[in-house]
Amino acid sequence: MPKSAVVLLNRPSLEAPPHVEGAAEFELLDVDAPHVRVLDLGVTRGDGVFETISFGAGHPQALAAHLARLAKSARALDLPEPDADAWERAVLAAASAIDPAPEAYVKTVMTRGLEGDGRPTGWAYASAAPDHSRARSEGIRVVLLDRGYRHDVAKTSPWLLAGSKTLSYAVNRAVLREAARRDADDVVFVSSDGYLLEGSTSNLLLRFGDTLVTPGLDQGILAGTTQGDLFAFARSQGLETEYARLETRKLAEADAAWLVSSVRHAAPIRRVDGVDRAVDTDFTAAVNSHLIGRTS
Amino acid sequence: MPKSAVVLLNRPSLEAPPHVEGAAEFELLDVDAPHVRVLDLGVTRGDGVFETISFGAGHPQALAAHLARLAKSARALDLPEPDADAWERAVLAAASAIDPAPEAYVKTVMTRGLEGDGRPTGWAYASAAPDHSRARSEGIRVVLLDRGYRHDVAKTSPWLLAGSKTLSYAVNRAVLREAARRDADDVVFVSSDGYLLEGSTSNLLLRFGDTLVTPGLDQGILAGTTQGDLFAFARSQGLETEYARLETRKLAEADAAWLVSSVRHAAPIRRVDGVDRAVDTDFTAAVNSHLIGRTS
Repeated sequence: MPKSAVVLLNRPSLEAPPHVEGAAEFELLDVDAPHVRVLDLGVTRGDGVFETISFGAGHPQALAAHLARLAKSARALDLPEPDADAWERAVLAAASAIDPAPEAYVKTVMTRGLEGDGRPTGWAYASAAPDHSRARSEGIRVVLLDRGYRHDVAKTSPWLLAGSKTLSYAVNRAVLREAARRDADDVVFVSSDGYLLEGSTSNLLLRFGDTLVTPGLDQGILAGTTQGDLFAFARSQGLETEYARLETRKLAEADAAWLVSSVRHAAPIRRVDGVDRAVDTDFTAAVNSHLIGRTS
Repeated sequence: MPKSAVVLLNRPSLEAPPHVEGAAEFELLDVDAPHVRVLDLGVTRGDGVFETISFGAGHPQALAAHLARLAKSARALDLPEPDADAWERAVLAAASAIDPAPEAYVKTVMTRGLEGDGRPTGWAYASAAPDHSRARSEGIRVVLLDRGYRHDVAKTSPWLLAGSKTLSYAVNRAVLREAARRDADDVVFVSSDGYLLEGSTSNLLLRFGDTLVTPGLDQGILAGTTQGDLFAFARSQGLETEYARLETRKLAEADAAWLVSSVRHAAPIRRVDGVDRAVDTDFTAAVNSHLIGRTS
């Protein structure tokens, strides 16, 4: 079996007509061949939404939460509602078309399709996961970077799509290049009024004593599926969990800090803007063991 | 000949290897077939740059300025430098492959290509222009929408890519849907600290007496090719031209106002947030006649 596979959906949303009347629900296609048209708004305008679902030992993790978030992002962009059942089948089909791997992922992409056509384009891409063991065990170096927006921008200016997982991620890539220039691996976005927000494609988690804290979701950030599962795990271990507005200085004050996301899972932050900080090795290992072992 | 055409470049940048060693510089391809791979960062991350060049009676307009801006956007995204000569030939080839039309346009797109591959993907798409005569003669209705960024964000936070023409334009599309909900045709972005910026894909121009004013380019906005040509035309007509920082109220105070861009050219603003405002019919007609008639 191949190392990666792509499944193209015939009808990503029941609100829109299928691409080919009467065709199969989806088709397994050659990843190396082109499948997107140059007029697809996904590529001309970054106009679409996506999710990345991790697989542990063949099991999709937080799949329902990912598909719910795909639908939420679609609503924010006034896209037709994704057909959750069709997407679930496509995700599983893509994953089972590749070589079994202890860790894998499937990326779901739904674009607005061709201008005026009304039929979204949708596909699921499956691949073995990159090796993130070093980030998980040794930790990552981050820099704080201004996101330019106030913390309340999702409320005041919903058209800025803050908190939606869109294909318009050029900034999320640019900040990684800026981080590399500053000898770091990732970033923590800061609001223009001084609050900690999230990573480039991850949530920020801080530990203060027996309490885990993450920035409140009313600050134009993504509701993390991994962060959600991690909070549940933490509570099962007797920790408190909390959503809060966190001033920038809190990152240095925390007893431990992580960026958490699907696929990479929990990456402890070991340096902030060039200054080393403490890492909680034991809890990190327990968390990652839990996250990697999830069977749903 | 077809109404639209796409030309795929074999080597969009001389800094990167060609896609096919020894192949022709570009290929004329079927617009209706897919040419972009699902792993192209152009579609997975909106990670690329573009330009739209208008053609009047078969002549490209402000082509050199567009290609210079494509290169500037590429630099902002740390992309390989576009090969201006190859792009110019591709643009002309695409335009001459379609049915002659009084007004046409060519859109150039350069993406980062596949992750880690190092070869950008590039194409030029040509089409007859939509009919913008009504917007030019009757004018457009705009709403003011917060862009979320301070006016100085390009200087303080270059990783936000303000002022670059990237494929990450989901917000530029979302604001048009918000405008439609408010019974308007377009938007004027306002900085979070209260300055007029630009339209969704256009520059704002105001007239005060014998002076044309546009927001200064140090405010994270695009250097308009049409705005540049229009300023030169205005000076040839004895008007003064000026770049300035413009508080929001200036839009209501101006004697006339336009959104100017390639293809649509100068669209007079006839209503702002539901309030009618004066339109300068004669100067608008003269400007558009000049812009449409450009032979370079």
